[in-house]
Amino acid sequence: MILALAGGVGGAKLADGLMQLLGDKLTVLVNTGDDFEHMGLTICPDLDTVTYTLAGIAEASTGWGVAGESWAFLDQAMRLGGPSWFRLGDRDVALHVLRTERLRRGERLTEITADVCRRLGITARLLPMTDAAVRTIVHTPHGPLPFQEYFVKERCAPVVTGFAFAGSENAAPTPELEAALADRDLAAIVLCPSNPYVSIAPILAVPALKQRLKQRGAPIVAVSPIIGGAAVKGPAAKMMRELGIEPSALAVAEHYRGFVDGFLLDEADAALLPRLAPLGLAARAVPSLMKTSADRRRLAEAVLNFAAELAAGR
Amino acid sequence: MILALAGGVGGAKLADGLMQLLGDKLTVLVNTGDDFEHMGLTICPDLDTVTYTLAGIAEASTGWGVAGESWAFLDQAMRLGGPSWFRLGDRDVALHVLRTERLRRGERLTEITADVCRRLGITARLLPMTDAAVRTIVHTPHGPLPFQEYFVKERCAPVVTGFAFAGSENAAPTPELEAALADRDLAAIVLCPSNPYVSIAPILAVPALKQRLKQRGAPIVAVSPIIGGAAVKGPAAKMMRELGIEPSALAVAEHYRGFVDGFLLDEADAALLPRLAPLGLAARAVPSLMKTSADRRRLAEAVLNFAAELAAGR
Repeated sequence: MILALAGGVGGAKLADGLMQLLGDKLTVLVNTGDDFEHMGLTICPDLDTVTYTLAGIAEASTGWGVAGESWAFLDQAMRLGGPSWFRLGDRDVALHVLRTERLRRGERLTEITADVCRRLGITARLLPMTDAAVRTIVHTPHGPLPFQEYFVKERCAPVVTGFAFAGSENAAPTPELEAALADRDLAAIVLCPSNPYVSIAPILAVPALKQRLKQRGAPIVAVSPIIGGAAVKGPAAKMMRELGIEPSALAVAEHYRGFVDGFLLDEADAALLPRLAPLGLAARAVPSLMKTSADRRRLAEAVLNFAAELAAGR
Repeated sequence: MILALAGGVGGAKLADGLMQLLGDKLTVLVNTGDDFEHMGLTICPDLDTVTYTLAGIAEASTGWGVAGESWAFLDQAMRLGGPSWFRLGDRDVALHVLRTERLRRGERLTEITADVCRRLGITARLLPMTDAAVRTIVHTPHGPLPFQEYFVKERCAPVVTGFAFAGSENAAPTPELEAALADRDLAAIVLCPSNPYVSIAPILAVPALKQRLKQRGAPIVAVSPIIGGAAVKGPAAKMMRELGIEPSALAVAEHYRGFVDGFLLDEADAALLPRLAPLGLAARAVPSLMKTSADRRRLAEAVLNFAAELAAGR
């Protein structure tokens, strides 16, 4: 049993590679800090990206949304004075409408997610990090911004000065996460190549989760979302610079120092390996860019082999 | 100023004809008894049919929904286990989502409708019959059915034994309806060719409305939705038979006896005119089938001329 922590596109791709190898032996714990309410609908962008990716229906050109999506809903909503900054495709809206109704009826996000996964033929288990409402707030010199306003509406332009995960203090682990944490067969914990600040950090902010993951004793392996000093996708590198950190795989490893046992960086960053040694973690350089489905599987294999190696060396 | 009472497709067509002649001198009071909650969305089928028709974007082949509608939302909703019996098009859903959100925020249906009409370029004023929740119930030998379940899900198959308008007793007229009722220039009240039992009756069930319309003294003219013993569209004739009434324009006139001053039936039913005389109303036979936009305008002209004639004769 492997537990993978994932945010958006990069995390979803590695989760897909892991599912190709592990099927139902994979649990993916997904960030819900970027969830928000929009047009009265509860939208879970990271959860949806992972769902669509594992279902094989994600739009390849963007990584998010449903492949071949149409936009009649959004066109009409704009004509009726609705907001246009968040691109809601016609198929995507169906998930938001059905989920919002089920949440209002009192179902838990975890239950709804399990049902959606079953209907879309996803063999891995997807768990939202919590059923509670946690909302990532991006602090900027001009005040705090809800995550989607920062990320989509403002296109990551504002300078970030810090982050908060509102509601996190009350976000109890779900029964399903408790079961995953108690699973005797848990062989490794994987931090997917997702943004450390706004994808992985909100998950680890679930009370006591970080300590409990560490205490499990299974190897914790992180994959760098930074290659050659740049984020493969998203604002991670820009955020690092704004926080006064030189963006690099080394900086990611330093960020995870004391928590992860193993760190995978891209072969393009192999020169950084000697500088990672003093951090007290094992590190390997591998091809980590995931352009094809086979790339995802190969990176997943590298992760699992590395974790097995770390477990054997204990 | 003309006040027209309308339900679905037939009513919407005459309202469109009246709007062609009257523009903003027309107020359309629309049935909301067939409104319902579906997938967590508040849907107002008659109001939407009138809205789309007056906006010139109604689907001509069915009379309801948006022209050239696409169905990606519904396809995906079905894949995710959502209900399929009510056909929600992609553009149509935009209105439902935006309206539902605005209702939840506390806006009144009348205000939302006015804004939608303005954005869609509708010059007439559309008023829902009330801002309160009124729900038409169809009584059958097997128990009561919410209207849309009878109408769409069961395709009008169940035998009807009666109707109720749940919530009607608390459905106060809106300030906008009060203003229309108090309008000094109100020259005529038109009952559009809509189902008398489930389109017009719910409107007239708004407390005191029927009496207040009558007391205004403006001529009340009804147009028969029954031509040659059959409903142009919908279950009106079937309902009549099940209620023990021979379906005909005569039966509609008898239904409205004591309320309407003038009754327009189709030229195909001209032979019924002598039998209408004893009902204490003026009657005329005119071409009333509305296949084209010009047909709508011609029928509207006949209605207005008839009303003017009735007013002059007083």
